[in-house]
Amino acid sequence: MAKTIGGFTLPGEKGYEALTMRLAGEWGADCIRDSDGTQLSDEILKSGIPIYSTICMVRSITAWAKSNMDKLQRNFLMSAPVLAETKEIVISPLDGYFREQFIIAPWDDPKEFWQVFDRTEGNEHADWSYDGEKELVTVHHAKKGHIYTVNFLATRIWEEISMYNHITNDWGDKEHLMAVEPRYPETQEALLSFLDEWLREHKHTRVVRFTSMFYNFCWIWSDSKRNRDVFSDWGSYDFSVNPVSLRAFEAEYGYRPTSEDFINAGRHNPVHNPPSRVLRDWMEFTGKFVREFGKKCVDLVHKHGKLAYVFYDDTWVGIEPWSGHFGEFSFDGLIKCVFNAFEARLCAGVSEVKTHELRLHPYLFPTGLTGEPTFAPGGHPEKDARRYWACVRRALLRVKIDRIGLGGYLSLTEPFLDFQKEVRDIADEFRMLKSLHDEGGVWSSGIRVAVLHSWGSLRTWNCSGHMHEHPELYLNHLYEAMAGLPVEVRAISFDEVIENGVPEDVDVIINAGRAYDAWSGGDIWNNPKLVENIQKFVMAGGGLIGVGEPGAARGGMNEFKLAPILGVDRETGATICRGKLSFETEAGHFIMKDVKHAVKAFHNHVSGVYPALESSKILMAKGKDVRLAVNEFGKGRGVYLSGFTYGTTEARLLYRAILWAASREDLDGVYMTDNPVCECAYYSGSDKLIIINNSARAAFAKVRIKDRQVRVRVEAEGSVII
Amino acid sequence: MAKTIGGFTLPGEKGYEALTMRLAGEWGADCIRDSDGTQLSDEILKSGIPIYSTICMVRSITAWAKSNMDKLQRNFLMSAPVLAETKEIVISPLDGYFREQFIIAPWDDPKEFWQVFDRTEGNEHADWSYDGEKELVTVHHAKKGHIYTVNFLATRIWEEISMYNHITNDWGDKEHLMAVEPRYPETQEALLSFLDEWLREHKHTRVVRFTSMFYNFCWIWSDSKRNRDVFSDWGSYDFSVNPVSLRAFEAEYGYRPTSEDFINAGRHNPVHNPPSRVLRDWMEFTGKFVREFGKKCVDLVHKHGKLAYVFYDDTWVGIEPWSGHFGEFSFDGLIKCVFNAFEARLCAGVSEVKTHELRLHPYLFPTGLTGEPTFAPGGHPEKDARRYWACVRRALLRVKIDRIGLGGYLSLTEPFLDFQKEVRDIADEFRMLKSLHDEGGVWSSGIRVAVLHSWGSLRTWNCSGHMHEHPELYLNHLYEAMAGLPVEVRAISFDEVIENGVPEDVDVIINAGRAYDAWSGGDIWNNPKLVENIQKFVMAGGGLIGVGEPGAARGGMNEFKLAPILGVDRETGATICRGKLSFETEAGHFIMKDVKHAVKAFHNHVSGVYPALESSKILMAKGKDVRLAVNEFGKGRGVYLSGFTYGTTEARLLYRAILWAASREDLDGVYMTDNPVCECAYYSGSDKLIIINNSARAAFAKVRIKDRQVRVRVEAEGSVII
Repeated sequence: MAKTIGGFTLPGEKGYEALTMRLAGEWGADCIRDSDGTQLSDEILKSGIPIYSTICMVRSITAWAKSNMDKLQRNFLMSAPVLAETKEIVISPLDGYFREQFIIAPWDDPKEFWQVFDRTEGNEHADWSYDGEKELVTVHHAKKGHIYTVNFLATRIWEEISMYNHITNDWGDKEHLMAVEPRYPETQEALLSFLDEWLREHKHTRVVRFTSMFYNFCWIWSDSKRNRDVFSDWGSYDFSVNPVSLRAFEAEYGYRPTSEDFINAGRHNPVHNPPSRVLRDWMEFTGKFVREFGKKCVDLVHKHGKLAYVFYDDTWVGIEPWSGHFGEFSFDGLIKCVFNAFEARLCAGVSEVKTHELRLHPYLFPTGLTGEPTFAPGGHPEKDARRYWACVRRALLRVKIDRIGLGGYLSLTEPFLDFQKEVRDIADEFRMLKSLHDEGGVWSSGIRVAVLHSWGSLRTWNCSGHMHEHPELYLNHLYEAMAGLPVEVRAISFDEVIENGVPEDVDVIINAGRAYDAWSGGDIWNNPKLVENIQKFVMAGGGLIGVGEPGAARGGMNEFKLAPILGVDRETGATICRGKLSFETEAGHFIMKDVKHAVKAFHNHVSGVYPALESSKILMAKGKDVRLAVNEFGKGRGVYLSGFTYGTTEARLLYRAILWAASREDLDGVYMTDNPVCECAYYSGSDKLIIINNSARAAFAKVRIKDRQVRVRVEAEGSVII
Repeated sequence: MAKTIGGFTLPGEKGYEALTMRLAGEWGADCIRDSDGTQLSDEILKSGIPIYSTICMVRSITAWAKSNMDKLQRNFLMSAPVLAETKEIVISPLDGYFREQFIIAPWDDPKEFWQVFDRTEGNEHADWSYDGEKELVTVHHAKKGHIYTVNFLATRIWEEISMYNHITNDWGDKEHLMAVEPRYPETQEALLSFLDEWLREHKHTRVVRFTSMFYNFCWIWSDSKRNRDVFSDWGSYDFSVNPVSLRAFEAEYGYRPTSEDFINAGRHNPVHNPPSRVLRDWMEFTGKFVREFGKKCVDLVHKHGKLAYVFYDDTWVGIEPWSGHFGEFSFDGLIKCVFNAFEARLCAGVSEVKTHELRLHPYLFPTGLTGEPTFAPGGHPEKDARRYWACVRRALLRVKIDRIGLGGYLSLTEPFLDFQKEVRDIADEFRMLKSLHDEGGVWSSGIRVAVLHSWGSLRTWNCSGHMHEHPELYLNHLYEAMAGLPVEVRAISFDEVIENGVPEDVDVIINAGRAYDAWSGGDIWNNPKLVENIQKFVMAGGGLIGVGEPGAARGGMNEFKLAPILGVDRETGATICRGKLSFETEAGHFIMKDVKHAVKAFHNHVSGVYPALESSKILMAKGKDVRLAVNEFGKGRGVYLSGFTYGTTEARLLYRAILWAASREDLDGVYMTDNPVCECAYYSGSDKLIIINNSARAAFAKVRIKDRQVRVRVEAEGSVII
């Protein structure tokens, strides 16, 4: 049995009532949930333990959808490019796309929504016709040697998560669920009436767990075996486009976005690229709708006397928890599935809900994300669970999370007794950490870090989805490192800095990205106000950490517009006649103090970075390529890193870089172990210090407590409380 | 003694008359020259062997220059950037520059020529004053947090080649030569009168060897030991700027270039970047002057009954042999110092002179370019000579060169008998190759390759200077590979293709560079006419070879604007949400046929290239990164290489790529060995076939001659004639 009880959500399963009840006890569960594919039996429902029930409304009324196909969700697609070898060319728009996901439906007028482009010229080509029967566009008066594409509005006939699970798990004849467009009044009526009915039916349900709201992230499939996901962006709003929304937008904003605003020459609008004005308007417009109609759903839940939690995943469009508008939904709880520590901080930091819950991994499925065995022969789910937990736990030292839980088929855990034990230990450790926060006063360095990128607070503690989707992004790794550090983190946008300067309550700015991406910033760096305000901030004593290609944009004196502060610049081929300063790496710098062993080469480093100022000091390099450099600028400081890969040593390196950038070397050794694999946190409420070991081997760590030095041994992935 | 005589220029040396005469015999020399630092004695001058005398006019009248300092050459420099922490800031323009090279002279009015820039804004800042006594600029009403620089006109007081040789060879008190500005009528008078006098004095001289003309390539030195050459570009015209030329330009073109046209935010205008309109005008203007005044000098030489050769190096500005205007000088010969084969083709292909001469390496100096011993203890000059010769020789199979020669201190060769023998063998081999051409009819594939870049014919067979200065440039390596291939090579400009399409007499286009450089093209790729014309060319059966980042420019469907033809594109971070086609490399393709061993990873490859079309075939890859791909487009073909490093296998690979791109697979095996280290050439005039071994080990090669297959053994770096 668990030593403690509570804050744990258990996935129950019909037919495994005894197991459900036994593990509920063993893990200290105070809630039982159903999952996608599982049901709860009467026995469980009536057990007296509060019940969570999951619901994803937009794919729950497929019967209605089938008789209202014109109210399915849509999105714009671009046809494959076609070379004009003759004056008249024929394009089959859907060619190459997955026909089980997309159709061209007769209810939208191509001439109202579609566009043909001469992609060689980059201009719209007006002279075309469409044969709806054959589903073919004929481009008239094409220019020989030019390439043409068709932007068209497709109707989606298979909801993406249903499609993915169906195909991945080989569900055969199981029904293809469809996603309805909630902008139509009829759809809203159908959805609310479905929800009302559902709430009545689920009389034992205490918490309604919305598997988010209405629009899935953009996930476009092709029919090519060589490239199933032709476009997949956890951050983009492409799937919220529909004639009804385009018309409503026009009525509200006075203009209508064209297909090209979304297609963007076939690039769409990835969250990783700086957003256009139209895209920002569209996001605002869509977000407002999602909140308004979402609120109606939540109100209905409340009316039935139940709580409404939201699971932040999949159909998440418009519910970004850090948007500043999240409170408008009136959700009671936010659930985040977590692979990484930064996701825990993303969840914990949202003040607009009472309950913050993490859905831990592994998911109770036979196989994992990449098809590896989990709850299947050869799997070691207990190791997976410990590894994920050790990853996430760092964040829980710094912030309080209210609940944890699991999802999937509980029955799968039956033969895995080690897993059952591991979860029991994790649950106990979680509750212990929570109690430390309840007793109050976790120590923080107080240093306020602002991550500077195109999106500002909307994308705090998150670039887009999970780390493993884009492990190349510096910012994912930086967020991950900071998630376990005693620093305050927020995100601010370039626009804010241009308009108001760097906020006064910021100590250190981080800009981390590749040239022209949304995280580095791109063309906005040619706005002198941005550079001026950052230079003023650092001149006055602020700290700047630049990673990868910070402030990179073509033209002007430097490729990195922040080079005067950072002291380094990058050779992109544009300045190969410029002599480069020779250098030797400097030993013994404050930032490098705990880096006893060489830092792993950052897997995502950029090459060609060189010292741009005699004043810059190079702390790490590979050949002539700078990896880590520091520079003083006015009263402030700049730190440059050529990349960043999360790891224990790297997290410590980053903490030291933050301390140095903020001119807070006085915090060296304060609640800080001498061994980077071990992190610690001090809680003044209980006068307790916890030391955790993030590595898979036992480790020794020394830490200063008040006036004495304590040395402890911490088991692999274990913790010690003093 | 040499087996043959002639076509060899020997550097004589006073005090070593016997050695001079002995080696003249041994090497079959028919000319004796002096060199920088050496003199010829009367005994040599009167030996009856024709004499070459070197002259570099602009640095030859330093006495006159010292009393006409206001007629020294000038150039614009940019001060170090200064951060404004107060409203008024003081900038010392020369700070950081090498004071023995540059001064700020009182004769040019700062207010007429200088500019102050707010580099944070990118705008000129008009409010400043200059204290000539203290050499300080005060910027008034500076904006706090902005960075300012001063563009200023500096006078150069030490001619760069004199400076380099002086400092490198530690010449102590030897006079610092000065470069005079030939635009002033007084300077022209002084120069012509000096030349006239010199010609009279050099009565034994048969050939006047101009160490080029008037303006050195741009070579800016700093006073920092960490970065002596702050800017060095063999291709740029910065050193031709002077009040007199600026005013003359204004009179002719109706506008005056500003300092910023040359400074370009401190980047200057490297030959490797696409040129601005002003720069092109300036080059035209300067080239015209150099030719006009150069012609006067050459005419004077002719008047004295002597021949005028030009050595294409150092003060080469305006004498580009492929400019289309080179004939206007009336030179009798062109001399090119060669490290590489492409330099031999550059020289040989110039039809406007009668005599084409190569100055071979090693130079007769104690140490080599990087300070390694040559004619000094530990040196092996015979190995160096053979290595350089083997490198250059490939080109001489394809084109005829009239003469070869050496330069430097002949006395140094005295103890190196192996070197003496090696040169004898090289001279004989050279004369043998020349005789093959004299007998006529070297076989060529007839394939006409056009290298497409910003400069067109001006930069044929050359990017800028020698290979070792920019070994990272693909084009240097491609030129080097093609120099030994039986293909015709020219360079065409983007402007030509935009205006007139791809010329009809072109079979294969090569575009090879990094994004936004002059070789790839940069923004010009957003001109749809350029893309259209190349697409039309390939559609109709043409070939396109793209290397590195061909046709790369931001925006539109693809990063590589040539992606539809090449079938690949590059992930720069802008399309990370785009799914990428998985692929397997295809074995047995025509292009890969002789690549029995793995091709070296191109040292300059770009990463992140992926197949953009299902139709593209990947022939080489590293992990997910495409290294070599082919694609069909209309009736034509595209080949992509992620980089290119010259080597024997790589040259063969390139030849096969050219054959395949041109749809000329029928030439497989035609005068082509089965072993890439051996190349061959067939001369129909003499019905001879030569096979050379480019490697440092003996090799066997099979080659088809008419209907039979011949197998020969070729010594290391040797040759066999059949």
